[in-house]
Amino acid sequence: MEFTAKVIADFLKGEIEGDPDVVINNVSKIEEGEKGTLTFLANPKYTEYAYTTKASIIIVNKSFVPKKKLKSTLIKVDDAYQAIASLLQLRESMKPKKVGIHPKSWMEKTSKAGKDLFLGAYTYVGENCIIGKNVRIYPHVFIGDNVVIGDNCTFYPGVKIYHECKIGNDCILHGGVVIGSDGFGFAPDTAKDYVKVPQIGNVVLKDRVEIGSNTTIDRAMIGSTIIEKGVKLDNLIMVAHNVVIGENTVVAAQSGIAGSTKIGRECMFGGQVGIVGHLEVADKVMIAAQSGIPSSIKNEGAILQGSPAFPIMDYQKSYVYFRKLPSMVARIDELEKKLKELGQDN
Amino acid sequence: MEFTAKVIADFLKGEIEGDPDVVINNVSKIEEGEKGTLTFLANPKYTEYAYTTKASIIIVNKSFVPKKKLKSTLIKVDDAYQAIASLLQLRESMKPKKVGIHPKSWMEKTSKAGKDLFLGAYTYVGENCIIGKNVRIYPHVFIGDNVVIGDNCTFYPGVKIYHECKIGNDCILHGGVVIGSDGFGFAPDTAKDYVKVPQIGNVVLKDRVEIGSNTTIDRAMIGSTIIEKGVKLDNLIMVAHNVVIGENTVVAAQSGIAGSTKIGRECMFGGQVGIVGHLEVADKVMIAAQSGIPSSIKNEGAILQGSPAFPIMDYQKSYVYFRKLPSMVARIDELEKKLKELGQDN
Amino acid sequence: MEFTAKVIADFLKGEIEGDPDVVINNVSKIEEGEKGTLTFLANPKYTEYAYTTKASIIIVNKSFVPKKKLKSTLIKVDDAYQAIASLLQLRESMKPKKVGIHPKSWMEKTSKAGKDLFLGAYTYVGENCIIGKNVRIYPHVFIGDNVVIGDNCTFYPGVKIYHECKIGNDCILHGGVVIGSDGFGFAPDTAKDYVKVPQIGNVVLKDRVEIGSNTTIDRAMIGSTIIEKGVKLDNLIMVAHNVVIGENTVVAAQSGIAGSTKIGRECMFGGQVGIVGHLEVADKVMIAAQSGIPSSIKNEGAILQGSPAFPIMDYQKSYVYFRKLPSMVARIDELEKKLKELGQDN
Repeated sequence: MEFTAKVIADFLKGEIEGDPDVVINNVSKIEEGEKGTLTFLANPKYTEYAYTTKASIIIVNKSFVPKKKLKSTLIKVDDAYQAIASLLQLRESMKPKKVGIHPKSWMEKTSKAGKDLFLGAYTYVGENCIIGKNVRIYPHVFIGDNVVIGDNCTFYPGVKIYHECKIGNDCILHGGVVIGSDGFGFAPDTAKDYVKVPQIGNVVLKDRVEIGSNTTIDRAMIGSTIIEKGVKLDNLIMVAHNVVIGENTVVAAQSGIAGSTKIGRECMFGGQVGIVGHLEVADKVMIAAQSGIPSSIKNEGAILQGSPAFPIMDYQKSYVYFRKLPSMVARIDELEKKLKELGQDN
Repeated sequence: MEFTAKVIADFLKGEIEGDPDVVINNVSKIEEGEKGTLTFLANPKYTEYAYTTKASIIIVNKSFVPKKKLKSTLIKVDDAYQAIASLLQLRESMKPKKVGIHPKSWMEKTSKAGKDLFLGAYTYVGENCIIGKNVRIYPHVFIGDNVVIGDNCTFYPGVKIYHECKIGNDCILHGGVVIGSDGFGFAPDTAKDYVKVPQIGNVVLKDRVEIGSNTTIDRAMIGSTIIEKGVKLDNLIMVAHNVVIGENTVVAAQSGIAGSTKIGRECMFGGQVGIVGHLEVADKVMIAAQSGIPSSIKNEGAILQGSPAFPIMDYQKSYVYFRKLPSMVARIDELEKKLKELGQDN
Repeated sequence: MEFTAKVIADFLKGEIEGDPDVVINNVSKIEEGEKGTLTFLANPKYTEYAYTTKASIIIVNKSFVPKKKLKSTLIKVDDAYQAIASLLQLRESMKPKKVGIHPKSWMEKTSKAGKDLFLGAYTYVGENCIIGKNVRIYPHVFIGDNVVIGDNCTFYPGVKIYHECKIGNDCILHGGVVIGSDGFGFAPDTAKDYVKVPQIGNVVLKDRVEIGSNTTIDRAMIGSTIIEKGVKLDNLIMVAHNVVIGENTVVAAQSGIAGSTKIGRECMFGGQVGIVGHLEVADKVMIAAQSGIPSSIKNEGAILQGSPAFPIMDYQKSYVYFRKLPSMVARIDELEKKLKELGQDN
């Protein structure tokens, strides 16, 4: 399908600079843009490519003022990244959706699903599950007994949802995600062995949660591990038992949150962050990649770095001096030498 | 089912403070305790909740002396965490166990299993496997050729055990665990390419090992990667080829142990710890989360932090000064200035 | 099967020191070597075992000069590690390969595969896939629609390849690997919620790529995430959307590379390394384990450590002084005290 710049600008409520009749039929990255494609410029790191791309249309922020002549037609919008998201969503919504029950899938008779279910090959649904409408479950998914699933969810291949967990509406779980495995709980006994503490709780995912591939969320020992509305977790993240993650918090890949910690809403954590158990983290806290959080964070909106972490500006100042430690030592050596000389002079 | 405080106290050999006839039929977290539930207090962080919880019974350590009036009945025991573990185990043991061979599972004819096998849907067991008695294998599990499995094991959905590996008795493997994938071994050849070094060894798990979801344990290049009796590994851990982990060692999530390293017994590692290959780590060593171990640890019971790690008290002292580096530099600046003035005075 | 030292030395073009007629029928680790086995010595850490091993033959580097009397026959070669790799490859090539279509597997009728396909139980191949010859696909593998796979690939159990991805020749994917899950892309909307940015690109693996278990590679938002020829990725690694990894680069376990970063060729990264998004890393760069890379690396062959990372020799010097910070502070205290005394003296 082909679209003109005019049609796209109308859809986005954007302004055209250039040829309103230029036509595109595909989307490209700005550095690889070809004639007949639409691209976008949202990250200023890529501004130079705006002058060299062969893409026919570039969606840009209104604030963008070209410093050189452009070959492409611009569509100016309030937020270029949001605009490309809307266009790609439109494109996705036009693709046919998978529906139907694959003959090589198995749902126990005590379970029920709403209309427009897609159940892929070799997927297994246990006893007494309740599945909403318009749910797409790819091959090799495991859904344990007594699981409840809302509407419009998508579970990609190999997702595993243990018994008794609850998934809200509009959730997306990627390949290999494990929801509801046992929390890591052991009590030492007299013989230096550990005895397992049974984990009798569950995991609750609220609406619009998306979870990246091979991320694991353990069930609560007692009660629920809770992922609130709109939370986005990247790949290979570990969420331990009884953790609560607040609304619209976003966590990058390979981060880990230890048991019973409560994370606020609208937080943003970089990759490979580690958070100790039994803490409370305030709302809107931002944590730099690879940082470690050893104690509760009470200040809303705090921005932290380091392992253990402290305020990011302070961390970065200290780190500048860490790099200069050899010269600091030389200065101390020199001071000691001079002081000794001075002392002897007196 | 309902139980009185008296029945529970008798089972736990504990002492009642309060109403021996109070009745519970469920378990709760202390901060969410409701009438008719039993809870416990093991972590002092939660002591305040003992005075506000609505739980009818609280299991506490004998050392707990209330500082305010309590609404709940106490059961005092030597170790509250162990006591709740016993109660939950009792509860688990009363639940019916899954048994039977699902019609949509496949075991090659050359393999054998002991009595009371549960084989879930779409599980595959390869050639010449020997499976003990009372083993529960959930859906989508892969068991390669020539695998040997002991008694009373539980493998959750999507566990993968490559050919020739050996699993002891009473082992629990959680969703997505991979046992026996190839070690990461490549030899550079003349053309800057790498040639694969075939990994012809296996993985051996001894008795009572529990492994968290999506953790991976690579097979030995030659010989065996060995996980000794009672070891507990959390989620998303990487154990490389030819590693040995000693008895009752406990490792938290997302830690990694590189090839051929030998870990002692009764060690405890925090999350996201990294250990270099070809090292030896003594018994009872404790490593703080996110630490990196670059060389062998010979001192039994050493407690380490940092990347690279050194003794934890020293690390924490150094880290206090790391945070103060900007002020240290200011002091050096000031010293230099004053010394210069003094020198000029003379 | 049995082999004499002479036969093995001829195959490896090596030199014998000892008995050319000694016979072996198995391979062992040098520290566990038994009579009738062949072992090797490549890592100098294990040199002492050369004098105590009971292995009948040891493959060593030509540079190895025994300092004590040896019980074993030596075969001296240019590179002992490469030599053992060749021998193990020979051994592997003699083992019968799995072939045939398991009755409990499913390939959609619109997909095609070349000769000598092995398709394991419960594996699913979607619509319009093209699979090369001599491909071995173990049980529980998911291959999405429109996937293209080259010749001689091996996919271990539970591999998941999303729609439209392309896999080259001679690739090996280990258990639980996820190729082509959605990149982590969300645009904030006005209501503090995030809207998903559809990820319409794919993942392209070139020839001879090997990927360790439970590693995840996300599909590009637009265009392709590209893993070039000969790249080796260890277990539990995260490769984000639109990343490019250059030829023959090797990455150790649990490292993560954020979106749109371009890695050069022949790089070597230790375990648990984190690399920020939208960077460029030059060829032959080496990064120490647990390091964090916050900005582009322009120097070919740079060797870095730290979080954030800088040149490794500088890092290690700074770290030595980090450990001595308490004594540095004591020296500053002392300087201030003495200077004060001197000042008062004047």
